[in-house]
Amino acid sequence: MKCAIGLDYGTNSVRCVIVDTADGRELGTCVYEYPMGEAGIILDPADHNLARQNPADYLKGAEVTIAGAIAAARKAEPAFSPRDIVGIGVDTTGSTPLPVDRDGMPLAMLERYKDNPNAHAWLWKDHTGYAEAGEITALARDERPQYLAKCGGIYSSEWFFSKILHCLRADPEVFDSAYTWVEHADWLPAVLTGTDRPDKLRRCRCAAGHKAMFNDAWGGYPDAEFLGRLDPKLGALRRTLSDRAYAVDQAAGRLTDGWARKLGLTAGIPVAMGAFDAHLGAVGSGIKNGVLVKIIGTSTCDMVVAPSNAELADIPGICGIVDGSILPGYFGLEAGQSAVGDIFNWFVNYIQPGGKEAGSHQALTEKAARLKPGQSGLLALDWNNGNRTILVDQRLTGLLLGQTLHTRPEEIYRALVEATAFGALTIINRFEEFGVKIDQVVNCGGIAEKNAMLMQIYADVTGREMKISRSAQTCALGSAVAAAVVGGAHPDFAQAQAAMCGIKETTFRPIAAHHKIYKQLYKLYRRLHDGFGIPGKLLGMGSVMKDLLAIKEKANV
Amino acid sequence: MKCAIGLDYGTNSVRCVIVDTADGRELGTCVYEYPMGEAGIILDPADHNLARQNPADYLKGAEVTIAGAIAAARKAEPAFSPRDIVGIGVDTTGSTPLPVDRDGMPLAMLERYKDNPNAHAWLWKDHTGYAEAGEITALARDERPQYLAKCGGIYSSEWFFSKILHCLRADPEVFDSAYTWVEHADWLPAVLTGTDRPDKLRRCRCAAGHKAMFNDAWGGYPDAEFLGRLDPKLGALRRTLSDRAYAVDQAAGRLTDGWARKLGLTAGIPVAMGAFDAHLGAVGSGIKNGVLVKIIGTSTCDMVVAPSNAELADIPGICGIVDGSILPGYFGLEAGQSAVGDIFNWFVNYIQPGGKEAGSHQALTEKAARLKPGQSGLLALDWNNGNRTILVDQRLTGLLLGQTLHTRPEEIYRALVEATAFGALTIINRFEEFGVKIDQVVNCGGIAEKNAMLMQIYADVTGREMKISRSAQTCALGSAVAAAVVGGAHPDFAQAQAAMCGIKETTFRPIAAHHKIYKQLYKLYRRLHDGFGIPGKLLGMGSVMKDLLAIKEKANV
Repeated sequence: MKCAIGLDYGTNSVRCVIVDTADGRELGTCVYEYPMGEAGIILDPADHNLARQNPADYLKGAEVTIAGAIAAARKAEPAFSPRDIVGIGVDTTGSTPLPVDRDGMPLAMLERYKDNPNAHAWLWKDHTGYAEAGEITALARDERPQYLAKCGGIYSSEWFFSKILHCLRADPEVFDSAYTWVEHADWLPAVLTGTDRPDKLRRCRCAAGHKAMFNDAWGGYPDAEFLGRLDPKLGALRRTLSDRAYAVDQAAGRLTDGWARKLGLTAGIPVAMGAFDAHLGAVGSGIKNGVLVKIIGTSTCDMVVAPSNAELADIPGICGIVDGSILPGYFGLEAGQSAVGDIFNWFVNYIQPGGKEAGSHQALTEKAARLKPGQSGLLALDWNNGNRTILVDQRLTGLLLGQTLHTRPEEIYRALVEATAFGALTIINRFEEFGVKIDQVVNCGGIAEKNAMLMQIYADVTGREMKISRSAQTCALGSAVAAAVVGGAHPDFAQAQAAMCGIKETTFRPIAAHHKIYKQLYKLYRRLHDGFGIPGKLLGMGSVMKDLLAIKEKANV
Repeated sequence: MKCAIGLDYGTNSVRCVIVDTADGRELGTCVYEYPMGEAGIILDPADHNLARQNPADYLKGAEVTIAGAIAAARKAEPAFSPRDIVGIGVDTTGSTPLPVDRDGMPLAMLERYKDNPNAHAWLWKDHTGYAEAGEITALARDERPQYLAKCGGIYSSEWFFSKILHCLRADPEVFDSAYTWVEHADWLPAVLTGTDRPDKLRRCRCAAGHKAMFNDAWGGYPDAEFLGRLDPKLGALRRTLSDRAYAVDQAAGRLTDGWARKLGLTAGIPVAMGAFDAHLGAVGSGIKNGVLVKIIGTSTCDMVVAPSNAELADIPGICGIVDGSILPGYFGLEAGQSAVGDIFNWFVNYIQPGGKEAGSHQALTEKAARLKPGQSGLLALDWNNGNRTILVDQRLTGLLLGQTLHTRPEEIYRALVEATAFGALTIINRFEEFGVKIDQVVNCGGIAEKNAMLMQIYADVTGREMKISRSAQTCALGSAVAAAVVGGAHPDFAQAQAAMCGIKETTFRPIAAHHKIYKQLYKLYRRLHDGFGIPGKLLGMGSVMKDLLAIKEKANV
C-alpha cells in the first residue's frame, strides 16, 4: 500500500487526510481549529479590514493533525503503517504572507512581536492594504500594464505586495525587522524540509504567479525599479525574492529527521511544493479542460484550466491566469467570490435571527427551501466582503432590497444564497464571453456537500447541472495527489487524478420553471451590480422595486 | 369640575382618557387591545397589502375603555363624577372605511359576512387597492386635475375610493351588499348618537377632505360622472355620500339613552364630529401657525396649519390640504411616513436579532445609542411600507446598504432609525420649499416619548430642536379638546388648547458635529431616494458605497 498525506490549511482550521494512492480512499483524517483570535483569526473591532493569523498555530496544527490522521488510519485499516506514506502535499489559503527574519523565523514567534498583529500572518481576507492596492494598480497601469493584464486589470488588496506595502506604511518597525515575507504555502513545506532560511527557500508558482505578479515573461517577480517607485524599501525587498518559482509537481525538499521523529513518519520522504487551497482543491475535484471547479467555502474559488498552447485572451476581472498553476501544461484561471459561506455565517452568527436555535443554518435552510423563486420580493448583492470577480473591488459592501413589514429571516437567508448564485453566474458568463467554454461544473467544499437547497438554487440560477466532487476534502485530496506524484506513486497528475478523484452520483439539474424566473431576477441583479459596482455608470433604478413586486406577485399565484 | 372624554382609536388598540378641561389634567385612562387577528389586524399571509379590522372590536373598545377610564378617574380624584363629563370626542385611524347596509349595520357584523375580510373595516394601511389608486390618479390627471392638486398629485391606495373600487373588483358580492361605505371616524360618533342610518349620518370634513377628495369648491365629493367613469356602480354610490361635511367644532349628535346607560354617562351630552387621530393629535400637541406636529407611531403624520386667508401653493407629495381639517380658520396640511415604528417593530418582531431578549427595542436602542453617526457604514431607505410623502408610492420597498461581514443588529437598528429621520427631513424640506415656514417641531406619540436616542437623531439629522408634547396621549387629548369645545367648557379651540395642552421641559437640541455628518449622509440618502423612487431618473450609484466607507472611516478615528 502506498499512501499520501494531504495537509489543507483553511481559514479557521487545518485538516490532514491520509489517502490510499491506488483509489483515493481516505484512511484517516483529523482537524485542528486554530486557537488564536476569533475562530482562529485575529480581528480588530475598529477596523473590519484586518484579519491576521498566528503562524505558531500552523505548526501546532501540522503536529496534531498528522498524528491524529495516523491514529485514525491505523484504526480504520489495520494493514496501514506510517511507513506506507510516500509523500506530503500542502495547500493553504492565500495570499497569506508573513514577515520572517534573516533566519526564516516568523516575527510573530519572537517574544518582542508576539502581540503585534502586523508581525503575524496577513490572512487572505485582510483588506487593510486597499489604498496600497490602488497605488500599485495605478502605477502598474502607467508603467507596467503587462503586470495587470494577467490579474484581471486590478491588483487586489488581498494580495502579497498590497499587504507588505501597507505594513511598510502602517508599522515601519515591523517592516524593517523583516528580512523578507513568505507565503504560508511556501513557509510550511520549507519548515518541514528544513529549507526555511531565506537563501534556501523555494517559492511556489501558484502563489507567486497569482498574487505577486510573478511571470517568466518578465523574469519572475516585478522588477526592483517598479517596486522602488512605490517605496525604495519595497524595491530593496525585491532582492530577497527568488527569480524562479516551482510548480506542485516539484518537491520543496525532504522531510527532516526532526520532523520525521515528531510526526512518526519516514525521514527523507518528499514534501511537494505548496499551492493555494483552491488550486489543489481543483485538482482533487478532477479538474480538466472544460470543467469549472467551484470550491465553495467561506469564499469561493472558481477554477478553470485552458491548454497552454492555445490562444487565450486576457480576461478582465479574472484574478489570475498563470501557466502551470493548477495542472502542468495548462494555464490555471482563477476567479472567485470574496464571501459566500461567510455571508450566511454573518447572518447566522452576527444577526442571529430569532435567536441561536431558530436562526441556525439548518433551521433557516429548511424554511428557505420551501419558498419559491421570486416569492419573497427580495434581491441582494453578495458584496459583504467586496467583489473579487468580475469587479475586483474589495471596498464594495452589501445591499438588500425589497423588504416589507412582513419580510422573514428565511426570506433574507434565501435572498443571500440567491445573491451568491447570481455572483457565480456572472463569473461563468465572464469566462465564456472571453472564449473559455464551460462544459461541466463540479462543486466541492462543505457547503456544496451539505446544502442541497443551495446547490439546487445554483442549478436553477445558472441553468446548468451542478455536480459534486466525491471527496468531502478535495483540497486535502488534491494535496495528497501532489504528494502521490512527488512520492512516485503515479507518474503524473492526470493518472493520479484518474485513480484518486471522482464525482458523486447525486447531482442537481436545473428546473426550467425556476430558471425562467431567475433569468428575470438576474437582470435586476445585474442592474444593481453594474449601478453600484461601476463608477460613473448612470442607470435607472426607478423600476427595480416594482419589477421585483411583479415577479413576487406572479410567484405567489 | 368640567371634564371631557377623548376616545382615540389607534392601529392596534383604543384608548379612552378623561381630562379636566380647566388644565388638561388626565384623571383616568384605559386601553383596550383589539382581540381579532394579529395585534388587532386581520392579515393575509399571501398578500402583504391586506390589513382589515373588525368593527365589533371598536364598539367593545368604547364600552370597556370608557368604563375603565371612569373607574380610574374615580380612584385618582374622589371629587370626580361621571356627571362632570360635558362631551365626548373621537379620533380614529384613516382612511379606514367599512361597508354598511341600508340600516347602517356593518356587513362584518352580519352572520353571513363575519368571516369575509372584505366585509370588515379596511384599515388605513391596507394597500390592496394600489392598482385602483393608479386608475383613479390617471383618470383624475386627465379629467379632474383639481382633485389631485389638493392631495399631492397622486391618489393613494390607502384612501377611501381606492379601497371601495378594489372591493367592487375583487369581491363584487360584498360591494353589492353594501348600501354605502362609512369612515370609522364617522361611524363611531354616529353609533353613539344614534345617527348611523345612512340618511342621518354626518360625515366629517377631516376624513372626507383628506382621503375622499371632498372640497366645497366642487360641491363636496367627486362628481358621479367622474366616479362612474371608473365604474358605473361607483358612480351610483355617489348619491349615498352627502354634499356637506362637518368640522370637529360641530357635534355629530347627542349621546343616546341606551349608550348613556351602558357607559354610565349623562344622556344627551354632545359627541363631537370625529377626525383622524393625527389631526386631533396635532390639536392636542398645541398646533398653531409655524408649528410642525409630528405624531410618531407605527407610521408618522406630519401636521402643519396655514392661515386660510393666505396664499398657499399646492404642494406636490403632501397628502392633503384641507380647509378647517385641523383648526377652524386654517388650512390643515398633512404629510407623513407610511412606516416608522412599524419598521422597528418589523426588525424586532420578525427578524428578532439575537432572539427575543437581545433583540428587544430596549436592548437594541441601548447599544445603538453608543454608536456615532456614520460609524456603521450603513444606509437604509424607510420604505418597508412604501413612501407616503414626498413620493406617494405605496409600492416602494425597503433597502439596506453597506453591510459587511461584521455588521451588527444594533447598527442596522440605528440605520433604520436614521432612515426614518432622513424621511422626516425630506418632508420638512418639502414644506419649506413651497413657502410653509416651520419654526418649531413638536413631537408626540409613544416613540417620541420613550426613545431619547431617536429624538436626538431626529434633532441631529434635521438640525432642529425637537420638542415633546407634554401629554403622553395627544390624540386622545385632542379629542377631549374637541369634546370640551362642543360641550361648552371653552368657547373655541385656541382657548381650549391654551388651557389643556403644553410642551415638556426636556427637549433635544442638535449637536453640531453630528449634524455635519448627517448632512453628508443625507445627500447619499437622497441619491438612493431619488434613484429608486423616481421612475426614469438616471443616477450614478457607483460611489455610494465608497462615500459611506469614507464617512465611516472618519467616524471611527
